[in-house]
Amino acid sequence: MRENEFPHSFPAGADAPLERRRRTGGRGADRQRRGAENSKYLNLVNGMSKSTVLTVEALEAVHDASLTILEEIGMDIILPEARARMKAAGADVTPGTDRVRFDRGLIMDMMSSVPSGFTMHARNPVRNVEIGGNNLVFAQIASAPFVADREGGRRAGNQEDYRKLVKLAQSYDIIHTTGGYPVEPVDIHASVRHLDCLADMVKLTDKVFHCYSLGAQRNLDALEIARIGRGITAEQMESEPSLFTIINTSSPLRLDGPMLQGIIEMSSRNQVVVVTPFTLAGAMAPVTIAGAVVQQNAEALAGIAFTQMVRRGSPVMYGGFTSNVDMKTGAPAFGTPEYMKAVIAGGQLARRYKIPYRTSNTNASNTLDAQAAYESALSLWALTQGGGNFIMHAAGWSEGGLTASFEKFILDVDMLQMVAEFLKPLDVGEDALGLDAVRDVGPGGHYFGTAHTLARYETAFYSPILSDWRNFETWTEAGRPTTYDHANRVFKAKLNEYERPPLDPAIEEELDAFVARRKAEGGVPTDF
Amino acid sequence: MRENEFPHSFPAGADAPLERRRRTGGRGADRQRRGAENSKYLNLVNGMSKSTVLTVEALEAVHDASLTILEEIGMDIILPEARARMKAAGADVTPGTDRVRFDRGLIMDMMSSVPSGFTMHARNPVRNVEIGGNNLVFAQIASAPFVADREGGRRAGNQEDYRKLVKLAQSYDIIHTTGGYPVEPVDIHASVRHLDCLADMVKLTDKVFHCYSLGAQRNLDALEIARIGRGITAEQMESEPSLFTIINTSSPLRLDGPMLQGIIEMSSRNQVVVVTPFTLAGAMAPVTIAGAVVQQNAEALAGIAFTQMVRRGSPVMYGGFTSNVDMKTGAPAFGTPEYMKAVIAGGQLARRYKIPYRTSNTNASNTLDAQAAYESALSLWALTQGGGNFIMHAAGWSEGGLTASFEKFILDVDMLQMVAEFLKPLDVGEDALGLDAVRDVGPGGHYFGTAHTLARYETAFYSPILSDWRNFETWTEAGRPTTYDHANRVFKAKLNEYERPPLDPAIEEELDAFVARRKAEGGVPTDF
Repeated sequence: MRENEFPHSFPAGADAPLERRRRTGGRGADRQRRGAENSKYLNLVNGMSKSTVLTVEALEAVHDASLTILEEIGMDIILPEARARMKAAGADVTPGTDRVRFDRGLIMDMMSSVPSGFTMHARNPVRNVEIGGNNLVFAQIASAPFVADREGGRRAGNQEDYRKLVKLAQSYDIIHTTGGYPVEPVDIHASVRHLDCLADMVKLTDKVFHCYSLGAQRNLDALEIARIGRGITAEQMESEPSLFTIINTSSPLRLDGPMLQGIIEMSSRNQVVVVTPFTLAGAMAPVTIAGAVVQQNAEALAGIAFTQMVRRGSPVMYGGFTSNVDMKTGAPAFGTPEYMKAVIAGGQLARRYKIPYRTSNTNASNTLDAQAAYESALSLWALTQGGGNFIMHAAGWSEGGLTASFEKFILDVDMLQMVAEFLKPLDVGEDALGLDAVRDVGPGGHYFGTAHTLARYETAFYSPILSDWRNFETWTEAGRPTTYDHANRVFKAKLNEYERPPLDPAIEEELDAFVARRKAEGGVPTDF
Repeated sequence: MRENEFPHSFPAGADAPLERRRRTGGRGADRQRRGAENSKYLNLVNGMSKSTVLTVEALEAVHDASLTILEEIGMDIILPEARARMKAAGADVTPGTDRVRFDRGLIMDMMSSVPSGFTMHARNPVRNVEIGGNNLVFAQIASAPFVADREGGRRAGNQEDYRKLVKLAQSYDIIHTTGGYPVEPVDIHASVRHLDCLADMVKLTDKVFHCYSLGAQRNLDALEIARIGRGITAEQMESEPSLFTIINTSSPLRLDGPMLQGIIEMSSRNQVVVVTPFTLAGAMAPVTIAGAVVQQNAEALAGIAFTQMVRRGSPVMYGGFTSNVDMKTGAPAFGTPEYMKAVIAGGQLARRYKIPYRTSNTNASNTLDAQAAYESALSLWALTQGGGNFIMHAAGWSEGGLTASFEKFILDVDMLQMVAEFLKPLDVGEDALGLDAVRDVGPGGHYFGTAHTLARYETAFYSPILSDWRNFETWTEAGRPTTYDHANRVFKAKLNEYERPPLDPAIEEELDAFVARRKAEGGVPTDF
């Protein structure tokens, strides 16, 4: 048989096993069933050998250049308390300014106490996630100001959208943690938004969640909500990291007050800090990818070192978020070849420092078209081959992160599951090698009805959520749906199926009381 | 700056360099210029370390099982002359049947003379392609019965569509060779179709082309057309492989007469044979990917060994084309996690035998939607990391190969160029590390106007053909175009720009005379 001929010339007498009748129907039912089957995605291990874009010498050159930056130029540290702590640790603080310079020996001493791996604890222990090594953890989109679905278009986020997206995150095991507010619910006043949102995280999901570092009181409230949600003491929580915060540097070479405060509050209590420079080459970082990665590394090392100045051995991740801009417009670009190289270089640096690596599933498309898919797929390629451990914005990111897309969320879940299936070790046992099946069938036959096939066909291959493999005629009869159409249908069906995970009523009561009290107290100041 | 905030808070005083005005216009002009700039894609080298899905032991187990198949079960060889040649070489031919069994020593002896690399010669030497090692060569889609563009819909192919697709292949340097007829032009009678089509290959392109093995006379005509096109003697052509043929086994375990005849005609003249089993797991091969790869390997080794029986040292490639079927419908699936593993396993086998590796850029979508993009991107991921050397169907493949899509061709060209950019070694010279630029800008600044940026911004990053990075508002004003819309516009513009590559009038005259004579002789029989 020639290539491409297959669909024309189905082998004579062949019959797809058992379920051929499903060709034109029952897709919804299939998908529903699959939803319950995907617990195989809880603990992902990436056993692939990791790719490199830097030689050993180049890796050392990047490392060395970034230490030179910290030593010679330094960082602006916009918080007196942080500067004081850095000075106490041995950094060179220029009096009367924000500037702090770090000796390379000091940085590397601090890096020496960073744990190479740790567990983040969820209120449901099944949802605990292992961070570091070859573990691969996916977190939902965070921090989009807008939300979109096909019917509602693109709009500012509100509490209802927020809750829907959180429910979707709970609905798929491949989404291991949430990650900040998937969309900013602007209908909740900023002074109490974190209270409502984090209480929802506890109630609507049983997964690890994130707290924004936007002032110490928000951190403290989040810590308390996480503690209540898990039903444990503050002491136990201190020995079991249960909350994480993203710390973005203000590139180039600056750490803002709320971020530094967040490190102090979180690291001092042994909670998880993810230090992530957002270094767009040609904008806030040098136009060369190597230069942008050097700057990323300098900023990341400074932030990570500070976590260890606050508390030796506290859990922290190395975040990489270097991409390029469209030099014609200044618009940020994602999922590009340059992004891929930066992701892989970041992984090499993180492994050099033996620290877990955080990266992202990105794209810059304004809709759910081919661009959204190829930019995301290229991101997934790079972060998988580059050894990403903790993947922020893994599902739902659209429009360069400005929009949380319901349809993109489903597309990403499907692609993440494909990555997980790709990473499953290939079965090469004697039975899988299939010599007996080949003997059974022999030259010129087919395998549809063999015992070897019948025993395996139901679970032999990944069943995608969205891929439409119907032939052209059947697909045309169905109205020629695109991936966008399928994703639109699936996200609504999934929301209809949603059930809240069990929560001890005493915990819910304590949580509600805490939120009510803190609201009565006025929440937090909003003049940060 | 927090992640995602970038487009909201463009750095104060920042201005994208020089070309900011292009934000809302001039895209067409940009693209035209880029088209002429892409000669950097002529000779691609894939220096990435190759991924593996088989351990050393598993690789040997697959190898061993496939040799057991050839020894114990054998292949049906549907051509007496081929069986006679195999018998003469030492194979075990069962009298009165098509069955031939191959001792593993015989197979490995034949594999020992396979060249690990070679050059395929085009009529324009700039278009010569190196096959094997770390070289990466992309060939256009081949053999689709249907063609599609948005306006014309999906329809049977004709000569006009055929020519348009061939012109597009000529228009992009990332498409290194054509690869069979991109669409079957059914308006040309089958008896003379190869004459018109191959003459067009010579006239409309200056790249290496393919000849179908559908009867010896077609091979002989193709050999003569390739020779005339290059303006060389038959002797020179015999020392400079200039034509390739895809040899598909008729899985399971059968080689049909025209394919065997093709090997005889091509290998005996030192032309390139690409032996490619089309082993769909669960249909024509065992339902396990390991089993399908075992069968693929058995069939590939048999075909490759036969090329060496015909002529020791003749150029040949190991083709892998294992994917899975949708077990609910029997429909073939492509660009799946299973496909990825099979592609990578095939690469390991080809490297084990030190033979160039042919694979494909696949997808099963019926349109240019997200599925088309993610299945292709996953294919590209696997074939790049798996060490593919010669990539058939690299651009234009749609609907599982049933349709050559004009828009998909452009999408694929863009993705192939992204792969090429990804594979370009990262510049880590002192200047690229950018320490001086970081010193210039310091904490809190931006890099838009620095000398380091201005010297590089025009060529710093890949400029995609299709990706739409405009902000939501500008994109909305433009009518919210999708990738499909952009691809539709680009393919038409590219066809308008097409110019025939120079061809010596004497060669064109000789070519026309040959085609006219062969047509007058009636072409070839069509009762194969």
